[in-house]
Amino acid sequence: MHIGRVIGTIVATRKDERLVGSKLMLTQPLNIDEVPVGDPLIAVDTVGAGIGELVIYAKGTAARHAAEKLQSPIDAAIVGIIDNIDVYRDLIKK
Amino acid sequence: MHIGRVIGTIVATRKDERLVGSKLMLTQPLNIDEVPVGDPLIAVDTVGAGIGELVIYAKGTAARHAAEKLQSPIDAAIVGIIDNIDVYRDLIKK
Amino acid sequence: MHIGRVIGTIVATRKDERLVGSKLMLTQPLNIDEVPVGDPLIAVDTVGAGIGELVIYAKGTAARHAAEKLQSPIDAAIVGIIDNIDVYRDLIKK
Amino acid sequence: MHIGRVIGTIVATRKDERLVGSKLMLTQPLNIDEVPVGDPLIAVDTVGAGIGELVIYAKGTAARHAAEKLQSPIDAAIVGIIDNIDVYRDLIKK
Amino acid sequence: MHIGRVIGTIVATRKDERLVGSKLMLTQPLNIDEVPVGDPLIAVDTVGAGIGELVIYAKGTAARHAAEKLQSPIDAAIVGIIDNIDVYRDLIKK
Repeated sequence: MHIGRVIGTIVATRKDERLVGSKLMLTQPLNIDEVPVGDPLIAVDTVGAGIGELVIYAKGTAARHAAEKLQSPIDAAIVGIIDNIDVYRDLIKK
Repeated sequence: MHIGRVIGTIVATRKDERLVGSKLMLTQPLNIDEVPVGDPLIAVDTVGAGIGELVIYAKGTAARHAAEKLQSPIDAAIVGIIDNIDVYRDLIKK
Repeated sequence: MHIGRVIGTIVATRKDERLVGSKLMLTQPLNIDEVPVGDPLIAVDTVGAGIGELVIYAKGTAARHAAEKLQSPIDAAIVGIIDNIDVYRDLIKK
Repeated sequence: MHIGRVIGTIVATRKDERLVGSKLMLTQPLNIDEVPVGDPLIAVDTVGAGIGELVIYAKGTAARHAAEKLQSPIDAAIVGIIDNIDVYRDLIKK
Repeated sequence: MHIGRVIGTIVATRKDERLVGSKLMLTQPLNIDEVPVGDPLIAVDTVGAGIGELVIYAKGTAARHAAEKLQSPIDAAIVGIIDNIDVYRDLIKK
């Protein structure tokens, strides 16, 4: 899984019917300093994440399990809200 | 899922028979400012997307679910037409 | 799926028996201007592609579907021969 | 699989219920010189890895097999503790 | 699949029990000139590859098929020994 922040939503009236009812959250991947890395992806919310929240997201089949929609076109999902990132920074530079 | 724009089509007479009848859309990945990032991929259209439209595309097994062709060689599919990208830009720089 | 060109073959006498009989094509990923991007991969031919041909290739489980060898170690396959790439170039710079 | 180091943990009270009871380890990908490459990911511990340990991690469906939670949103897991990396360095420069 | 060279092994006493008996080969991805590209990964040997050998490796579910351990945490495997890479170099620059 990865660290991200919900930075917006995608509005799409015409879409696969299995995406209807799912919130399409624009999710910005972050590093451990909460600095953006790479471009945002579209993840389905499965835990009630709000705009601005720091989240855990998963990709691939894991995302369809999270959404409990195994037969859907979902390939990314928010699976947790991060309370805290506990990092031992001296271990990174080693 | 990801944000993209349909920028063309691929013409291929000789192809896997399970691709026959599927529109092979050349899809340019975009960032939230709709600026191209990386190289276009070939995604099967499943929502009636036209040239120039801003779309949501999915990759991997999710794409075969979108196309409802689970036993096919499809690994990317357009799954929605984007009406609007609502971004809270102050959240990105944080 | 992606755009590539067959630039060679891999000769491997000792290999997984499920690869026996499959042609291992060295495939160079290309952008829409047919310029190489990234390093070649090894894709199994499923459409009779020849050296030098412009092809569509798929990755992951999609490749095993293409090869109709679901229980094999194949993770990339050529699934079509490209006749033409129709690009609306003004849509890219937008 | 890949080489990584456990550099911390993720605290998330609100999360997919199938993640409850799993330790979410912040894992830094490393090269063979144990130098960080790319950004940390969140991997579920399945072997009792501690903070600071050098580990093997797997991604995708392999991670759900490791966790023995096939129907879960897990897409990365720690699957071994590395005792030693035996590298023949002259083979790299060849 | 990809081109790589076996450059070492990973010693891990404590690991997922489904990895016991599998040789964990440190595999360096190579380009067609056999020059290293990117960082080594850990692939399970399924064809009797030795240190220094030029190999074909596969990733994802394909690797578990190669190892014939579908329910394992394996996500990369060596699936062939390369005898020769036949490249038509004039096709790359085109």
